[in-house]
Amino acid sequence: MTRYFNEEGSVEAVNARMGEGTDPRLAEVMSCLVKHLHAFAKEIQLTQKEWEVGIDFLTKTGRICSGERQEFILLSDTLGFSMLVDAINNRRPAGSTENTVFGPFHVVGAPVLAMGDCISLDGKGESCLFEGKVLDLEGRPIEGARVDVWSDNADGFYDVQQPDIQPKWNNRGIFVTGPDGCYSFVGIKPVSYPIPDDGPVGQMLGNLGRHPYRPAHMHYMVTADGYQKLVTHTFVGDDPYLQSDTVFGVKTTLVAPYERLNEAETLWRSPFDFVLCPVSR
Amino acid sequence: MTRYFNEEGSVEAVNARMGEGTDPRLAEVMSCLVKHLHAFAKEIQLTQKEWEVGIDFLTKTGRICSGERQEFILLSDTLGFSMLVDAINNRRPAGSTENTVFGPFHVVGAPVLAMGDCISLDGKGESCLFEGKVLDLEGRPIEGARVDVWSDNADGFYDVQQPDIQPKWNNRGIFVTGPDGCYSFVGIKPVSYPIPDDGPVGQMLGNLGRHPYRPAHMHYMVTADGYQKLVTHTFVGDDPYLQSDTVFGVKTTLVAPYERLNEAETLWRSPFDFVLCPVSR
Repeated sequence: MTRYFNEEGSVEAVNARMGEGTDPRLAEVMSCLVKHLHAFAKEIQLTQKEWEVGIDFLTKTGRICSGERQEFILLSDTLGFSMLVDAINNRRPAGSTENTVFGPFHVVGAPVLAMGDCISLDGKGESCLFEGKVLDLEGRPIEGARVDVWSDNADGFYDVQQPDIQPKWNNRGIFVTGPDGCYSFVGIKPVSYPIPDDGPVGQMLGNLGRHPYRPAHMHYMVTADGYQKLVTHTFVGDDPYLQSDTVFGVKTTLVAPYERLNEAETLWRSPFDFVLCPVSR
Repeated sequence: MTRYFNEEGSVEAVNARMGEGTDPRLAEVMSCLVKHLHAFAKEIQLTQKEWEVGIDFLTKTGRICSGERQEFILLSDTLGFSMLVDAINNRRPAGSTENTVFGPFHVVGAPVLAMGDCISLDGKGESCLFEGKVLDLEGRPIEGARVDVWSDNADGFYDVQQPDIQPKWNNRGIFVTGPDGCYSFVGIKPVSYPIPDDGPVGQMLGNLGRHPYRPAHMHYMVTADGYQKLVTHTFVGDDPYLQSDTVFGVKTTLVAPYERLNEAETLWRSPFDFVLCPVSR
C-alpha cells in the first residue's frame, strides 16, 4: 500500500509510485534524480519564493530556445554538467588525448581538403599553421583518420552564427591522414569569445560574478576505424581566460604551443599530436 | 589559482568560480544545486545519450509553457518537489491543520458570499454542504477568518480552464467567519481529474507507468490576522486515486468525511474544522 507523502519520506513516496513495467534504466535514472533533487531542497531548506524564482528561470530558459539557440545546453555547460558527463563517458588510459565538450557549433558536411590547405576563407585574423600526427597508444601513425576541424573567426563568431555572411565553410574543413598519420592545415589563431549571454544563463552568470568567455581554441573531432571518437579542442596557451573558461572545457594536456614564425604569410605554428584509444571490446 | 575541471573535483571547480560579491544566499543555493546535480550524474553514470534526452525534455517542457500552461510546475508537482517545498516551509505544531500544494487554479477576486450560500452556479454535480469552524490551537473560534474556496466542476475542470463557459466564478467563493468561527457553504462533491497530460510531463508519467489523476478535493485558503496562512485541500475519502495522487498532495489528516444526507436538495455533507497556527514571532 502506497504511503502518503511526508517530508522525511518524500523520496520513497515518489519513487514507490513507479510502475512495475517501467524500463529498468529509466526507473534507475529517475529514482536517482528524485533522490538528489529532494536532497538539494532539504539541505538548502529551499523557500517557496526561491522555488518560484527557479520555476521562472526554467520557463525563461525554455522560452528563449530555438533552432539556433539552445539555452539549456548553455545552462548545462556553465554549471559544469556537460563537462562532467563528457568526463564520465570518455575515461581513457594515460597517454590518450583527452576529450572536451563538443559545443553547439559543429556542422556535418564540411569540405574534405588536401593536407596543408587553408580553412580561413575571409582573410581575417592571424594565420596559423596547425600540424601534427594522429597516433595510436604505441606511437604508431594511424592512416585514414578523419580530422574534422572548426574554429571561430577573427571576430569571435562561428560561421553558423553569421549565416548571412559569406563565404560558407569559413574556418572549417576535414583532413584525412595518409600512411604517415600526419595532418596539417592553415587556419587562424583562434580568439576568445563570449557564449550568448543576453538570456537567462547570461543573467545567471552575471549574478554569480562570472564572465561568459571561452578561451580561444581550435575544435577537433578525430575518428578512425577501430578507435574511439575523439572530440576535443586545443587551447591557445596565453589566453587570458584559460583559467576561467565559462564552460570548464580546459584541460592541462590540451593547452597547445603557439610559436611565432618569421614568415611573411603564416604568423604562427601550433603543433599537436592526437593519440587515439582503441575501441574497447 | 583556479584549478582546471576534472571528474573528481567537478563540484569544487564549478563552485570556486563564483565571484566574491555574489549574494550569500544565492551562492549557497547554487553551490548546493551544483553539488547535488553532479552527484546525480556521478551516481547514475549518466550517458551522453541520456544527457541529450534530458536537454530535449527540458526544452520541450519550456516550449509548451504559456500564460495558461505551466509545464515546469507540473514537473515539480509530479516529482513531489512542490509538496516537499511546501512541507519544508509549513512545519506546524501538532493539532494545526496541515498545508498542501496550492495548485495553479486559484483566482484572486472571487466574490465574498454569505454563510450558507451556494458556489455551484451551473447546477451540475452532486450538491454537498461544507461546514465547520475556524479555530486556534486552543480550540477557540477565530472571528474574521477569510475562507477562500475553489473546486473543479462535475466534469473535472476549474472555471479558468474553460474561460468561454459561463457563469463566471462557478465553484468559487470567499466566506468570512463571525464570532462563532463557523463557516458553511454549498458546493458540489468534487470529482477526480487528470492534470494536463498532453505534454512532456504527461509523456513522462506514461513512461513511468503513472496515471495523471488527482483525487477529488475542495481547495481552501484560510487567512486571519495574527495566524499563518493555511493553504490546503480536503479530500473525498472514498476517491479511487486517494492513494496515488499524481502530485502527492494527500495527507491523512486532510481526508474529510462525506456523509450521505436524506435531503432532496443537498445530497452530501462534509464537515471539517480548520485549526490555524499563530504567526511565529
